[in-house]
Amino acid sequence: MFKELASATESLKALLERCGPVNRSEAVHLAGAFGRVLYEDVSSPVNLPGFNRAAMDGYAVRAADTRGASPLAPVYLQIDEAAGEGRCVPVRTGMPAPRGADAVLMKEDALPRGREVEATAEVHPYRNLARVGEDVALGETVFREGHKLRPPDIALLASLGLSEAQVYERPKVAIIPTGNELVPPFSTQQLEPGQARETNGLMGELYAKIWGGSPRKVPLVEDDPNLIKEAIAQNLDADLILISGGTSVGDEDYAPPILDEMGELMVHGVRITPGKPTALGMIEKTPVICLPGYPVAALSALYIFARPLITMMAHRTALPRVILARLDGKIVSRPGYLTFARVGLKDGVATPIMTSGAGILSSVARAEGYVMVPEEVEGRENGEMVEVNLIE
Amino acid sequence: MFKELASATESLKALLERCGPVNRSEAVHLAGAFGRVLYEDVSSPVNLPGFNRAAMDGYAVRAADTRGASPLAPVYLQIDEAAGEGRCVPVRTGMPAPRGADAVLMKEDALPRGREVEATAEVHPYRNLARVGEDVALGETVFREGHKLRPPDIALLASLGLSEAQVYERPKVAIIPTGNELVPPFSTQQLEPGQARETNGLMGELYAKIWGGSPRKVPLVEDDPNLIKEAIAQNLDADLILISGGTSVGDEDYAPPILDEMGELMVHGVRITPGKPTALGMIEKTPVICLPGYPVAALSALYIFARPLITMMAHRTALPRVILARLDGKIVSRPGYLTFARVGLKDGVATPIMTSGAGILSSVARAEGYVMVPEEVEGRENGEMVEVNLIE
Repeated sequence: MFKELASATESLKALLERCGPVNRSEAVHLAGAFGRVLYEDVSSPVNLPGFNRAAMDGYAVRAADTRGASPLAPVYLQIDEAAGEGRCVPVRTGMPAPRGADAVLMKEDALPRGREVEATAEVHPYRNLARVGEDVALGETVFREGHKLRPPDIALLASLGLSEAQVYERPKVAIIPTGNELVPPFSTQQLEPGQARETNGLMGELYAKIWGGSPRKVPLVEDDPNLIKEAIAQNLDADLILISGGTSVGDEDYAPPILDEMGELMVHGVRITPGKPTALGMIEKTPVICLPGYPVAALSALYIFARPLITMMAHRTALPRVILARLDGKIVSRPGYLTFARVGLKDGVATPIMTSGAGILSSVARAEGYVMVPEEVEGRENGEMVEVNLIE
Repeated sequence: MFKELASATESLKALLERCGPVNRSEAVHLAGAFGRVLYEDVSSPVNLPGFNRAAMDGYAVRAADTRGASPLAPVYLQIDEAAGEGRCVPVRTGMPAPRGADAVLMKEDALPRGREVEATAEVHPYRNLARVGEDVALGETVFREGHKLRPPDIALLASLGLSEAQVYERPKVAIIPTGNELVPPFSTQQLEPGQARETNGLMGELYAKIWGGSPRKVPLVEDDPNLIKEAIAQNLDADLILISGGTSVGDEDYAPPILDEMGELMVHGVRITPGKPTALGMIEKTPVICLPGYPVAALSALYIFARPLITMMAHRTALPRVILARLDGKIVSRPGYLTFARVGLKDGVATPIMTSGAGILSSVARAEGYVMVPEEVEGRENGEMVEVNLIE
């Protein structure tokens, strides 16, 4: 079927080298900015706090007025509206420090005596008093370009009075499902013999979003080279095109020759299992991944090629969620092939899921994760510790 | 301030024991069902495939007709519209098997000779032919109650012709921000001296969603016990109430006595650092967490108490994303306290982030993760390997 099969690792590397992170930006409201990546450094437009602030309950004082105070030699301060010259002002945490104050005497060190306070400790300047800009100074860089926003980051930006952030656009992922025998998912249409529901494109769409992309799935395209070409041409503004073939029709592989005609077919047939019929290429500046038709093969190709590509374009790390587990059973891999081996996972034990083929997603239903067996390794032995990547 | 501080581990355990997973369900469209948890077993309403299907390109045959065929002793079959009685039908992968066929002879083993085919191999019944229901049988349980839906699962359900799933409702998390000195986040209102923007409630809202809940944030409530009581009473239909105090006003802790009055104040003051002023309780069947005012303390309380509670209620695992890293520096923890220590993370090295207090989220801006130092451990040594939980 394929004259020469390409190495998975080298194919991925070649594809990644031809692409780059998305460089367009957009302003988004912070309330919806979770997971978005900053396009530029953010500097604070304000001082935080914006005023000298009491950091303790007690009495705002001029520190110098408490010099030498101790339980045996207390100093008496007069309660007033401003501090300094022997005066002090009662304050609670968070309140603005009154005029003349440069420190707060904790209430534990200050006994009220009518209109006076008996100070039994000395305080140094700025003790228990947060200065203007102490938390964040006006103009200070709070986040660098490339920072991925998490809830505390959004809270910090909101505390600076900001309501928007300039972030990288999500990479646009166009998904083109093809196949005469397919019926759109979720349609009420009944299946005729020979028909199946389109689900690889659906899977690609869901994953594109999870991995940080903005998916755009086009309506099902018939197995007609001209229609497929047209769909591709209409989506060359995307950052990535995923073409998915029919779920079961093996031979009518229209997409790879079209890739070759419209641009560059870099690879057709890769040493991954499942997923061998995967094709990769470039049309103009847009990378194209042709997913194999069998669902598990499509899943494998999505994880091996689309995931690193989309996360890179989205300025994210491709770091999967990994659990170290002991293998209960053997993983048989195909030497020279990158193997996407599904495993069940329970109480730290990974059980290989035996499956006859790549056709059936029900084998994935029982899989919690996958073990990637590299090309140069021949499977994994029973009892070995393996890194299980959780299926997202 | 607190007569007796409660153990973090025991407080959390006591709270979890009083609560349970949400048991209400709703039907959701599969296109938006990612991450939702099935309320019931799902059985297949159809056979998949719905017809006997060719699993190879070649000729559909009655297996018995190929008996004994080999390159040296080929068998000749007549090309026709139905199989059997010495006849065969050309088929391609995925096509319905024609009448009379119970196997497919691969095209590699079948040489066309005019109106006949020279079969050079024998096939057994059901060889290269997927039977009705072979992938998924009508009535077969495809997923069990409690399964969290991932893209391949949604694709599988869609392939069965389903478009909805009955899933557990997300736990309702009511967030009640309180504080006279606070101004809502994202408002255009300028801050007066002494004012700050409300961000702990915002952080709670964002995390509630990430952890699988359905947040409902009520407008800012003034520091008036009656208004706070009213807000709580109006939200007792929630599965969890988070009350966040002012970001900096330490002493006006209205919520814990209200908890005591309206229901049960289980804990006020916990041995976690930061986050000591956290309070926990129950009002009727609704657990209530009062977050401390300082932002990092609120973050710590969210991770230590709200995260396990919300994920449990949402039928999810609380498993954080963990990276094993070598400590570059020492983590000083408070003996007897569960310590939420922020660390930077680069190239497998975790650097403790020194910070004077719990007030400043900008210290979290530089933190990639946190190390939980248990109560019975006194810090972590320079060079130790530690488990870093990534900040979501």
